[in-house]
Amino acid sequence: MKKPEFEPAEAILSGETSDIYFARAIEILRHEGLNPVATMEFFSGRRGVLCGMEEVRALLERVLPGDNREVWALAEGESIDDREVVLRITAPYQSYGLFETPIDGILSHCSGWATAARECVDAARGIPVISFGARHVHPSVVGVMEYAAIVGGCIGCASIIGAKLVGIEPTGTMPHALIIIMGDTVKAILAFDKYMPAGVPRTALVDTFKDEAEESLRVAEALGERLNGVRLDTPGERGRVTVDLVKEVRARLDLAGFKHVRIFVTGGLTLERITQFVESGAPVDGFGVGSYISGAKPIDFTADLHEIEGKPVAKRGRIPGITPNTRLKRMM
Amino acid sequence: MKKPEFEPAEAILSGETSDIYFARAIEILRHEGLNPVATMEFFSGRRGVLCGMEEVRALLERVLPGDNREVWALAEGESIDDREVVLRITAPYQSYGLFETPIDGILSHCSGWATAARECVDAARGIPVISFGARHVHPSVVGVMEYAAIVGGCIGCASIIGAKLVGIEPTGTMPHALIIIMGDTVKAILAFDKYMPAGVPRTALVDTFKDEAEESLRVAEALGERLNGVRLDTPGERGRVTVDLVKEVRARLDLAGFKHVRIFVTGGLTLERITQFVESGAPVDGFGVGSYISGAKPIDFTADLHEIEGKPVAKRGRIPGITPNTRLKRMM
Amino acid sequence: MKKPEFEPAEAILSGETSDIYFARAIEILRHEGLNPVATMEFFSGRRGVLCGMEEVRALLERVLPGDNREVWALAEGESIDDREVVLRITAPYQSYGLFETPIDGILSHCSGWATAARECVDAARGIPVISFGARHVHPSVVGVMEYAAIVGGCIGCASIIGAKLVGIEPTGTMPHALIIIMGDTVKAILAFDKYMPAGVPRTALVDTFKDEAEESLRVAEALGERLNGVRLDTPGERGRVTVDLVKEVRARLDLAGFKHVRIFVTGGLTLERITQFVESGAPVDGFGVGSYISGAKPIDFTADLHEIEGKPVAKRGRIPGITPNTRLKRMM
Amino acid sequence: MKKPEFEPAEAILSGETSDIYFARAIEILRHEGLNPVATMEFFSGRRGVLCGMEEVRALLERVLPGDNREVWALAEGESIDDREVVLRITAPYQSYGLFETPIDGILSHCSGWATAARECVDAARGIPVISFGARHVHPSVVGVMEYAAIVGGCIGCASIIGAKLVGIEPTGTMPHALIIIMGDTVKAILAFDKYMPAGVPRTALVDTFKDEAEESLRVAEALGERLNGVRLDTPGERGRVTVDLVKEVRARLDLAGFKHVRIFVTGGLTLERITQFVESGAPVDGFGVGSYISGAKPIDFTADLHEIEGKPVAKRGRIPGITPNTRLKRMM
Amino acid sequence: MKKPEFEPAEAILSGETSDIYFARAIEILRHEGLNPVATMEFFSGRRGVLCGMEEVRALLERVLPGDNREVWALAEGESIDDREVVLRITAPYQSYGLFETPIDGILSHCSGWATAARECVDAARGIPVISFGARHVHPSVVGVMEYAAIVGGCIGCASIIGAKLVGIEPTGTMPHALIIIMGDTVKAILAFDKYMPAGVPRTALVDTFKDEAEESLRVAEALGERLNGVRLDTPGERGRVTVDLVKEVRARLDLAGFKHVRIFVTGGLTLERITQFVESGAPVDGFGVGSYISGAKPIDFTADLHEIEGKPVAKRGRIPGITPNTRLKRMM
Amino acid sequence: MKKPEFEPAEAILSGETSDIYFARAIEILRHEGLNPVATMEFFSGRRGVLCGMEEVRALLERVLPGDNREVWALAEGESIDDREVVLRITAPYQSYGLFETPIDGILSHCSGWATAARECVDAARGIPVISFGARHVHPSVVGVMEYAAIVGGCIGCASIIGAKLVGIEPTGTMPHALIIIMGDTVKAILAFDKYMPAGVPRTALVDTFKDEAEESLRVAEALGERLNGVRLDTPGERGRVTVDLVKEVRARLDLAGFKHVRIFVTGGLTLERITQFVESGAPVDGFGVGSYISGAKPIDFTADLHEIEGKPVAKRGRIPGITPNTRLKRMM
Repeated sequence: MKKPEFEPAEAILSGETSDIYFARAIEILRHEGLNPVATMEFFSGRRGVLCGMEEVRALLERVLPGDNREVWALAEGESIDDREVVLRITAPYQSYGLFETPIDGILSHCSGWATAARECVDAARGIPVISFGARHVHPSVVGVMEYAAIVGGCIGCASIIGAKLVGIEPTGTMPHALIIIMGDTVKAILAFDKYMPAGVPRTALVDTFKDEAEESLRVAEALGERLNGVRLDTPGERGRVTVDLVKEVRARLDLAGFKHVRIFVTGGLTLERITQFVESGAPVDGFGVGSYISGAKPIDFTADLHEIEGKPVAKRGRIPGITPNTRLKRMM
Repeated sequence: MKKPEFEPAEAILSGETSDIYFARAIEILRHEGLNPVATMEFFSGRRGVLCGMEEVRALLERVLPGDNREVWALAEGESIDDREVVLRITAPYQSYGLFETPIDGILSHCSGWATAARECVDAARGIPVISFGARHVHPSVVGVMEYAAIVGGCIGCASIIGAKLVGIEPTGTMPHALIIIMGDTVKAILAFDKYMPAGVPRTALVDTFKDEAEESLRVAEALGERLNGVRLDTPGERGRVTVDLVKEVRARLDLAGFKHVRIFVTGGLTLERITQFVESGAPVDGFGVGSYISGAKPIDFTADLHEIEGKPVAKRGRIPGITPNTRLKRMM
Repeated sequence: MKKPEFEPAEAILSGETSDIYFARAIEILRHEGLNPVATMEFFSGRRGVLCGMEEVRALLERVLPGDNREVWALAEGESIDDREVVLRITAPYQSYGLFETPIDGILSHCSGWATAARECVDAARGIPVISFGARHVHPSVVGVMEYAAIVGGCIGCASIIGAKLVGIEPTGTMPHALIIIMGDTVKAILAFDKYMPAGVPRTALVDTFKDEAEESLRVAEALGERLNGVRLDTPGERGRVTVDLVKEVRARLDLAGFKHVRIFVTGGLTLERITQFVESGAPVDGFGVGSYISGAKPIDFTADLHEIEGKPVAKRGRIPGITPNTRLKRMM
Repeated sequence: MKKPEFEPAEAILSGETSDIYFARAIEILRHEGLNPVATMEFFSGRRGVLCGMEEVRALLERVLPGDNREVWALAEGESIDDREVVLRITAPYQSYGLFETPIDGILSHCSGWATAARECVDAARGIPVISFGARHVHPSVVGVMEYAAIVGGCIGCASIIGAKLVGIEPTGTMPHALIIIMGDTVKAILAFDKYMPAGVPRTALVDTFKDEAEESLRVAEALGERLNGVRLDTPGERGRVTVDLVKEVRARLDLAGFKHVRIFVTGGLTLERITQFVESGAPVDGFGVGSYISGAKPIDFTADLHEIEGKPVAKRGRIPGITPNTRLKRMM
Repeated sequence: MKKPEFEPAEAILSGETSDIYFARAIEILRHEGLNPVATMEFFSGRRGVLCGMEEVRALLERVLPGDNREVWALAEGESIDDREVVLRITAPYQSYGLFETPIDGILSHCSGWATAARECVDAARGIPVISFGARHVHPSVVGVMEYAAIVGGCIGCASIIGAKLVGIEPTGTMPHALIIIMGDTVKAILAFDKYMPAGVPRTALVDTFKDEAEESLRVAEALGERLNGVRLDTPGERGRVTVDLVKEVRARLDLAGFKHVRIFVTGGLTLERITQFVESGAPVDGFGVGSYISGAKPIDFTADLHEIEGKPVAKRGRIPGITPNTRLKRMM
Repeated sequence: MKKPEFEPAEAILSGETSDIYFARAIEILRHEGLNPVATMEFFSGRRGVLCGMEEVRALLERVLPGDNREVWALAEGESIDDREVVLRITAPYQSYGLFETPIDGILSHCSGWATAARECVDAARGIPVISFGARHVHPSVVGVMEYAAIVGGCIGCASIIGAKLVGIEPTGTMPHALIIIMGDTVKAILAFDKYMPAGVPRTALVDTFKDEAEESLRVAEALGERLNGVRLDTPGERGRVTVDLVKEVRARLDLAGFKHVRIFVTGGLTLERITQFVESGAPVDGFGVGSYISGAKPIDFTADLHEIEGKPVAKRGRIPGITPNTRLKRMM
């Protein structure tokens, strides 16, 4: 994975994505001629994996003054504790006060996705996990969502924009639509094999028309050594993919001499179900996780002023002064 | 609220935000010379409020052929049932197959937000609800999130971009940061009153330094008739805003002759807490809801082919042929 | 259903199936020359459906004296309440005291089965239920178990001995073994059609090798009008038969013009699952219930002496004298 | 315990206790001239204690051909795992296919009883357990039920037929009926002592008319050294036998010099109650367990073909080919 | 029941039973010369039955000035709501400020007892309830506890001091100790009958040595018409008094012609158990309730100043000014 | 703490606080001339801390004969087990039989309080606990309740009578009433400081009018070194004292140089809340516990005769003879 180049959008820089009261506060402070050097800290609302800090860095690079600034932060992908300070900005307030909303938003949303991905990866205990959830989020955030999933430990993603952002090839098989239009899974995988570049792995989706075990044997017989794997995606109406189905497909493929064919499991995967596959020893070669990651609840981040011109302050409910956190590193 | 103008982004139109396998399917079908008129249906994963259909319409307008197409849909903001078909597209498959991912994504994410907003609005039983959750989502979706909240029934939102999208004024008070920098709530509300245009309501945030009841009386005495309201935002460290606090602040304001001052409640509001305020008769004049709406789980939408060239088809687990739904209206 | 002829086995009449202490008690009483006219009552341990009374009657006919006896009872198949007296015997104690064990046993075991059957029949709300559980009980009780299921409301059973007992034809399709040996479901149903008498309904078991929906269409095409129905028996490893599967198979059969083909559901059925099928409107034409009925817990019955030579008595914990129950009818 | 001689009943050998579809399958296969050597495996539906295998062996001895057969099995009384294969038959299918129902039934019912008995015995941690449940099952299975209880670890049983089957003396005290007819517990135990052979232990049932502690002292005084024990069987209406009652009766007997008198507990015993007696140190000398054992749910067993003429096969949901289980021993 | 004469103890009037800080506050105010007319309100911590107000009235009569005072209150025995104001004192603060502790204490403890009693009386639906709990509380409060139980609806009590306070005869049978010393229940009831005045009802305690049913018949035969009733008090070690025991004792007494003998139930009674007796129709003639009433948790009462010299005031968390409650009546 | 002098009240000695049936039993025994030496044991109804034994000793000293008596007991403050015998009296029954009620009552009520106090002290793990619950109990038992709390481990109490009983100074700050009358917390603490003797610690109650953190700083600035501590007593209407509030007040006091000021927490404390403060490391210097201790449920004690003139006896349900307990010490 390469480090992505984040470029703040014009709508962010202009303050349009911020809450109106920040714009008003800046305007009032300008009228009053108040622009103190202020220290703002951002802390998390629960434990998880930090993500979005690289995008925040790109934003701060654009708005903070060249000097008279100091930014300390945790790094992308680090584990964070409940209520841990992950970012501390010291600079003239007017330079960054407007951006409290988008900084919170980037960290909240991205850390929510990365945390859910990390949970799946941990549950999978070494079996690769791929992010498959682009279709559950607005296309405007598909890229950052997939990026966050990869920060959280996924080894790949299905969306083109997500893969591009981190410099990898997107991962995918074929849609049910292709098989339905071609009328048969074997025909579809043969066409796939015929037209797709050599580097693209041949993985057949095997639950469209026939029983998964039967279809797996049919595509294996059709493609032989060239078949990379089968993807089991049994719909909820048929009880989803079960531990026993994976074991049976593996056994039937092996019995027929197709030990090289890998088995990928998708469809409504949750932590509980991944754990169940792993603990019962189901021979899964990869999990494709959708809404558990892409629909993860954001981790709320909160920002507070803790010093004004070097003097400890805080609103009611918070401790005045810098919050000690030796894990923070100087970022800018 | 005006009807927003949605303009599909280039990344969507180019297929970049789609999953790779759709791009591959289209390529294979082109090689094979297959482009049948196909009917695809999109159905919801649970009950809720439909949102995103206007943005989907804008996308379909750009990609479907001028004739040889027929699109039926439910309207923005309609209630939808579990597993209800909300959109049915009949057109040559190659024209729209690539966009299954973003269509699903727009409907999923927006309907999730609108549904959560509707729940809050229903729980509030007539007390206005404002969307305050911009800081929990990535800035790229702040606009659509606030739009969805308003479709769900919120009367306003705090972000500038959200308000702009629906042609209203953004709603907001002042950040804690302003009060901390100015050192006193009364000073801050006086400055706000001095510099802000006449049309902007004067609402003071009253939990920064002093007890909320005491501070409410201080700002009321300072601004008198010009004070629109106070916003109670007691942090979790102090037990959040309680029913009793609202009643007491109301009683103390009334006793001091400030019956015109309204009380707004924010901070960690959930359905349970809104219901508690409403059922115990707390005199709240408005709720500002954050992560309950903006962090709502997307409603998963699923797309299926049900007819190819007029012939009923379906993958295993689904019923072949058009799914009857008399609520659908012709959209294109 | 005809009334079965019950004939007490020699092991019962000889007292061998009784607990030893009854044999000893009779011996002691004989030595003491005590043989009072005693009234014994049998009451149930919970609510349910009474079964076994006909077999008990046959036993009493053999052991009670021709006169100096009076037996009151509820009838086979009646609903009984918790702790309701269902049988009252007044006769010289030595004539029947030895048979407390088998009378209790017959009523307990049979009423347990009949009660479970009645629960399924009630849950099925008019959809026929067939008893399929012979393989979960010892062959010595297969006949009485199926008889009890029919007393409870089942319209048929699969075992030969059970059907014979009540004078009906046994019900059944074909075992998986036949299909496996013949290698294909269509071949098996064609052979079945070829060799079985005209009166035997042609019902195909459709989950052996292929997807149930696909196989259903195949057998329907093979037998056409002669096909009576399909039996869905999806194993637990594949998520059992689901509501959606039934709906889909129905839809696909109808679409292909096989509206006459009926759908039978079997495999791990419980009250909860039957209710789920019924309440969600799944188009089931019959349920085959196994261990829920045949493995039902017996209803414990208890016997107590309540009068000795017309004088009210009772052990501690019981009320002396005849327990009033106007529902009892004179049986002997 | 001697090894019982099981003799298959005519109704079993004739196929009458089987489900009709097996008879039909055999008939079809005969018409088709198909009689392949087939391997059938039987596996359990949950963990437990295997019982019924000796009876199954007697059946197979009668129906399998003298050669061209191979049977592997676990032994009577062995612990079995969930879904463990306990029996594997390889022989011409027509010779045994008809008996799938009774083989399943014998194993299911007997293993259910033996498993429940084992649970009680384990809970009793060395205190003897006796099977007392004949009156909760149909007399046709009283013998095999008691046999299974003894396989599960019970040291005795109350029914004559059960004891005979395993070559032991049946165990029992006296019925409440005897005491009620004789009018007094002391009179009853004196008569028992007078007429019963010397080898029969004198154990008095002490809850019929008087408080158990009082009655225990009365019978101890009446029989002195000849009294073996007392049986506490307090009815549910009086709160059943409690831990404290046992301790008090023990203390009162000891205080009066009757330390040799043993205390047996019966009446509605379950695992929970046995455990409670044991863990609280109640001085119980024996438990008599009824419906917990005799009314135990059968363990469902399932049969599957796994090889036809040496070729691995299986229905959907099962793994083709022999299931490895090194614990199986060659039985025939 | 007569209205008791409450006389405040010297320790209360001297302030010794108050918390020290009230004494200090009064001293400081004296030094400062501050003695404003202040209005203090007392409100309850949960719903219940008010008790203790008569004793509070007696205290206030002693400490408030003859004029310049106004006291409003709810009456002894009234139902009170959660957080309802039950007492409002307006007088010079120094006259009563010291007594906040004992006023709270009297109302809290007495209302706790009266509320528990009312719950029992409601659950008993017309069957008399007697307070039997003197032995669970310190003898210093036995009198007020029994008084409160009677305010809550009990028709009598067992302690001499409690009965004296309300001018009734105490209720009671005989202790187990008497029976144990006399060695037999019949002897004890005969002695009771011999020496006790004619007006004292003859009620025998029947669980000391023998089974309750047996003993009930023995005492009924001994006293005949003179026997008022039997008291069942089965200890926990024997499963407490059960519904079935009451029914059986009633039946056996009736059968023997003792229909006039009443049945009283005592021993660990709770709301749940009383309800169970009542709902199952057990023929109970009276319940004796101990620790459920006497060990009831006090209802916390809280006192607040709401006006000083006619000006509304309140501490944080409370509403300034008089709390409207139209149910209050002028008491002084 | 000094050992208190307990003096039995006349109402106790006269038998007025006893249940009537004991008085009647004594009268009957006198008539019968029965006064055997009897051994009575008192055992507890659950685990806890024994309290009240000193008061019981004082009572027994007054009523037992000078010789012909033997009393064994556990000591005040010892831990006791469920159903453990804590007191054994051997003496002529008529001398003490009347006092079963008050002995039970003293032990029950006092042990209930002491046990609850011990639980709080254990939960506080070294942080001092003060008993503050006088206002939840009747003033007649305030003294013994506070005494029991101190026996349970509290280091002080607020009531004057309680402190006097054990020879310590009562502990307390100031009531809200004083602050409300004086109109300001700072004024109140200054007056307190002016008039109170030097030895009384200056502790300010800081939640009456202003935010606790703000008020803490104000009183600290007003009194400086003379301020002993602040007491946080936030009402339930404001969410009670939270862990975060304590940490913030500590931080703000420290930041302002008032490290010597201690923090006391009161208001609705329970075991759960004390544990939460302790486990989250909140810097609490003392807990003031009210109704958790003073409203604790009494521990039921039960008395039984176990020997009459040296002969083991017991009522049904109890073991005859002396119950062995080597922990008992000879008391009289």
